[in-house]
Amino acid sequence: MAYVGQPQLLADIVLWPDRSIIKQSYDARERKIDPTLPFHLGHGNLNGDGFGIGWFNPEERRERDPTPCVFTSITPAWNNENLSRLACKIVSPLVFAHVRAAYPGMPVSEQNCHPFQFSRYMWMHNGVVAGFAQIRRSLLETLSDCAYNAVQSFHSDSAVSFALFLHHLPDIRAQLAPDVLIKAMQDTIATISSIQRRHGITATSLLNYVVSDGTTLIATRFVSPDSDGPASLYYAEGASFARTPAPSHATPVAAAMAAAVSPPAQQQQQQPG
Amino acid sequence: MAYVGQPQLLADIVLWPDRSIIKQSYDARERKIDPTLPFHLGHGNLNGDGFGIGWFNPEERRERDPTPCVFTSITPAWNNENLSRLACKIVSPLVFAHVRAAYPGMPVSEQNCHPFQFSRYMWMHNGVVAGFAQIRRSLLETLSDCAYNAVQSFHSDSAVSFALFLHHLPDIRAQLAPDVLIKAMQDTIATISSIQRRHGITATSLLNYVVSDGTTLIATRFVSPDSDGPASLYYAEGASFARTPAPSHATPVAAAMAAAVSPPAQQQQQQPG
Amino acid sequence: MAYVGQPQLLADIVLWPDRSIIKQSYDARERKIDPTLPFHLGHGNLNGDGFGIGWFNPEERRERDPTPCVFTSITPAWNNENLSRLACKIVSPLVFAHVRAAYPGMPVSEQNCHPFQFSRYMWMHNGVVAGFAQIRRSLLETLSDCAYNAVQSFHSDSAVSFALFLHHLPDIRAQLAPDVLIKAMQDTIATISSIQRRHGITATSLLNYVVSDGTTLIATRFVSPDSDGPASLYYAEGASFARTPAPSHATPVAAAMAAAVSPPAQQQQQQPG
Amino acid sequence: MAYVGQPQLLADIVLWPDRSIIKQSYDARERKIDPTLPFHLGHGNLNGDGFGIGWFNPEERRERDPTPCVFTSITPAWNNENLSRLACKIVSPLVFAHVRAAYPGMPVSEQNCHPFQFSRYMWMHNGVVAGFAQIRRSLLETLSDCAYNAVQSFHSDSAVSFALFLHHLPDIRAQLAPDVLIKAMQDTIATISSIQRRHGITATSLLNYVVSDGTTLIATRFVSPDSDGPASLYYAEGASFARTPAPSHATPVAAAMAAAVSPPAQQQQQQPG
Repeated sequence: MAYVGQPQLLADIVLWPDRSIIKQSYDARERKIDPTLPFHLGHGNLNGDGFGIGWFNPEERRERDPTPCVFTSITPAWNNENLSRLACKIVSPLVFAHVRAAYPGMPVSEQNCHPFQFSRYMWMHNGVVAGFAQIRRSLLETLSDCAYNAVQSFHSDSAVSFALFLHHLPDIRAQLAPDVLIKAMQDTIATISSIQRRHGITATSLLNYVVSDGTTLIATRFVSPDSDGPASLYYAEGASFARTPAPSHATPVAAAMAAAVSPPAQQQQQQPG
Repeated sequence: MAYVGQPQLLADIVLWPDRSIIKQSYDARERKIDPTLPFHLGHGNLNGDGFGIGWFNPEERRERDPTPCVFTSITPAWNNENLSRLACKIVSPLVFAHVRAAYPGMPVSEQNCHPFQFSRYMWMHNGVVAGFAQIRRSLLETLSDCAYNAVQSFHSDSAVSFALFLHHLPDIRAQLAPDVLIKAMQDTIATISSIQRRHGITATSLLNYVVSDGTTLIATRFVSPDSDGPASLYYAEGASFARTPAPSHATPVAAAMAAAVSPPAQQQQQQPG
Repeated sequence: MAYVGQPQLLADIVLWPDRSIIKQSYDARERKIDPTLPFHLGHGNLNGDGFGIGWFNPEERRERDPTPCVFTSITPAWNNENLSRLACKIVSPLVFAHVRAAYPGMPVSEQNCHPFQFSRYMWMHNGVVAGFAQIRRSLLETLSDCAYNAVQSFHSDSAVSFALFLHHLPDIRAQLAPDVLIKAMQDTIATISSIQRRHGITATSLLNYVVSDGTTLIATRFVSPDSDGPASLYYAEGASFARTPAPSHATPVAAAMAAAVSPPAQQQQQQPG
Repeated sequence: MAYVGQPQLLADIVLWPDRSIIKQSYDARERKIDPTLPFHLGHGNLNGDGFGIGWFNPEERRERDPTPCVFTSITPAWNNENLSRLACKIVSPLVFAHVRAAYPGMPVSEQNCHPFQFSRYMWMHNGVVAGFAQIRRSLLETLSDCAYNAVQSFHSDSAVSFALFLHHLPDIRAQLAPDVLIKAMQDTIATISSIQRRHGITATSLLNYVVSDGTTLIATRFVSPDSDGPASLYYAEGASFARTPAPSHATPVAAAMAAAVSPPAQQQQQQPG
């Protein structure tokens, strides 16, 4: 999940809502069934292979330090005491949270936990790059040295996707306009699709990415081929954020609604204010 | 789960069977519903708060070292690479394996993972000592200094139960006859029940314990009050152990059957041979 | 180490100073030699058995939530990426940091890492309660149920010391005056000393404690018997805090000086402003 | 360290000797001083960034399963209870043990811990591939797909070196003769040196590698350029293995002696018997 808006206590966003990301670590309900995967990955409700949260400084300190903070762990989100304690104290206007289900061959380590971070960017992925094992070398060959060296884990399709995004940025350090970031995101998905085509990969790719530089937030909902349905993605927008106190429940002022976007990649973009 | 018999590769017992303990880390199906617990503990199928395996030396090395070996970790059993690697190499005639669901207030740490070990004994528990928070001091007061100092975690009803068992042994170092161990087990459950009564605890205790000294293996299936059903416990016995190769499946030669034992505590005891 | 004053970035206090607590995780230079301990504990320069940081909210949020935040890990401080990332973002007016050397029998777990926290209190300890294994039951027997249940680890002399302090508070929830806290600290040390005398413990106790409720900070430097020297403790006070940028160096405006205090316990107390 | 010979209890090799690898996790005494590294890496005595042990099955089970077992952890070797417990039970005729000091940019994770394992091979490295960050892409480009996909961590010069070795094997699955393995090791070092020359890397490479397939064991001691001294490497051979009981002390029957081998790579090769 990702939040951008008035500064909020992380616990209000990450821990306490009825369908919080923590609850989705043990009770995710919208996983697409994939019989080729081990049961707990392909059918189950489990995202217990580590987690991560990331957040940007409040505005008054962002000028001095525009990079986000990331806290990751290989233990499940539901029992992590550091997560509970940090989320009850930290306040931020832009928050990412992710719970992970590790695919076979993608090891459980802090380096594989989302969100990934480089310079002022944070990146998360819900889904899978089809045929990653076969196309990994080709994906990596397209990268500039700078983007190549930013790859946090070469065993994760999500981390390599992030490097492709960084590769498509005209300047990896400067603050860029939203349409420049959207273009880099579109180029990222196009590069992956093109390399998959070249290798004859026809399995389904689910590319729900989220990226932010602290100001702009871009989320994609993409599936290829489009004979398959995309992975679910919900969003809501409104003028304020409130959590009804009991039972714990997150209710953005504008009602939440599903965002059904068909390929090629269409982005939802939100800016504070 | 616990195994005693011809030496087996741990993977054949712990990893590969259809209803292996690893599968029960993410797909346990017989949890008794307890609406007072958080959802994933009281209704769910999850035992993801750490795990442990324990085993005794093969007979030829047990004389020199009668103590069991224990390997525990706070990460879930389903993604632990050390567990996979060790289980594919270690061979033992007496094996314990446990996946944990941590109750509120019982922290996730290696010291809280079963099996617990002291001297030649290994101990596991599936269930809960009702009112543990209220009776903890009273339980601990009954212990000899030796048993008190053997408590691995004072925040775990299972570890304190083990210390009560050690306390009721006439000799903590010597090898003891099966009936002596059975008596200590009965005394353990009686002590807990008596202290609960004294404190007016009426909630349900589920005391499925397993203990072994490398020769004798005792398992209990106990519930109190008996208006409630006990937690499930299966056992099988036979002259040999075989796993049908595909699909992975554990089939002891004698068909598995449910062991429905009613309180007060009745033990199933097995000895090699 | 402990800091109270103008809000500072944790990295300026914890990571970057020349003699930072991180450096003391691998290069502590003032350990008192104790030949009865394993070499790396009794002679060495190593505090690599986990660490912890704790901090209070900035004043504007402390009214809503007066409890401190604690982040602990069992891995060494010098290689912990979460620590580096968090310390570079979090700003606080009252900070604790601790690197641990685990004595034999005191396990390495997050529950054993300092600072310990309960209600509005944070607690750290540098030193050892002599004869802890022999007097543990007696120490615990003196506790009220409330303080007993606040003990985070019964295998740590430091955690049990904290519970004794909580036991000696007239009210565990209310904000208390500095002299009330000083009295509770003196009572804590007196209780330990008295129980040690009763058990004939004559080995050296080093009781450098630090406690804070977010407003008052108390540090002790205590040794018993006084034929031995106490563990080192440095403090500095001044009107502002500056770190000379290169080479990284913490220089409080008033020069640091050793605080040589002889037993019985004398406390240094600092209040913001 | 590496051992090949009569089956031994791992504790006798890994835990209890006077200069055991465990002691070298906190008291390594022969590190070459490198002022360009952080103090605890370049001057210190610390190898606390994780560890690993690996061992092969006893001969009677090696035919059914020729692959080695590996146990790794990111916590220091000196306080790891699983290591102590496993080493006191496991018996093997061929053992590797490694304690790690993580260079900047090489993360602390189980995937980065030595020994690395693939098929029947185990691999360890003491030293550094100079200029690894600059030549990583070139090193990886030389690999066959099979060797490329065997790389366990692309952030470790040691893991990439292992992949180069696998790449130079004529057959990655079959059992190979000692001289074939020696040739692959020589080719590995030659490839690294050649790519370093091409990139103008002149800093010192220390390539003390150990590899085994369960039958042959090869260790190298290599430095380039040879104006620098190589990292230390000791070996001993004899007809039996004994540890004098008190004080704990490893004394191979043939006295230990330093193996000073100058570049280009010269290997010490040992075969059981």
